[in-house]
Amino acid sequence: MEIEDWRKQIDELDEQIVALICKRAEAAKAIGVAKRDKGLPVYEPQREDAVLEHVKKLNCGPLGDAELMHIYERLMDVMRTLQRRDI
Amino acid sequence: MEIEDWRKQIDELDEQIVALICKRAEAAKAIGVAKRDKGLPVYEPQREDAVLEHVKKLNCGPLGDAELMHIYERLMDVMRTLQRRDI
Repeated sequence: MEIEDWRKQIDELDEQIVALICKRAEAAKAIGVAKRDKGLPVYEPQREDAVLEHVKKLNCGPLGDAELMHIYERLMDVMRTLQRRDI
Repeated sequence: MEIEDWRKQIDELDEQIVALICKRAEAAKAIGVAKRDKGLPVYEPQREDAVLEHVKKLNCGPLGDAELMHIYERLMDVMRTLQRRDI
């Protein structure tokens, strides 16, 4: 496959990834509202550790675990900001 | 829905997101090999801008564009490291 073909594949993957990130953000927002209603803190380190452990188990390469964690730490950071902002 | 139900949904979404990130990394790796063979640089700012523009158009909320970009900048940063490392 040529570079242009791989790039088309990446564009298609991004369409799916962004749609899933949007759904994940909706769920995070709903959790933010529930946390506010129950008086729970936004930052729950145990849950964040569990998410990262789950993600690490799902890693199917070729990224190393640390690289995948690097992406997910940013994703969770952004989701936490959303929970603080939109509720 | 309760917090636990949303968290189950997030875990399921993470399974899909990680699988797609793995596929995206495979494609990035293949592009890295092709770039090396053709003597092209790993960092191509025009292509990276095009990816970010595409992602911005796909944003279906509730994240703001800047928040989604924040995630994708990290994702692309990691993919660039992979292209430099694994070829």
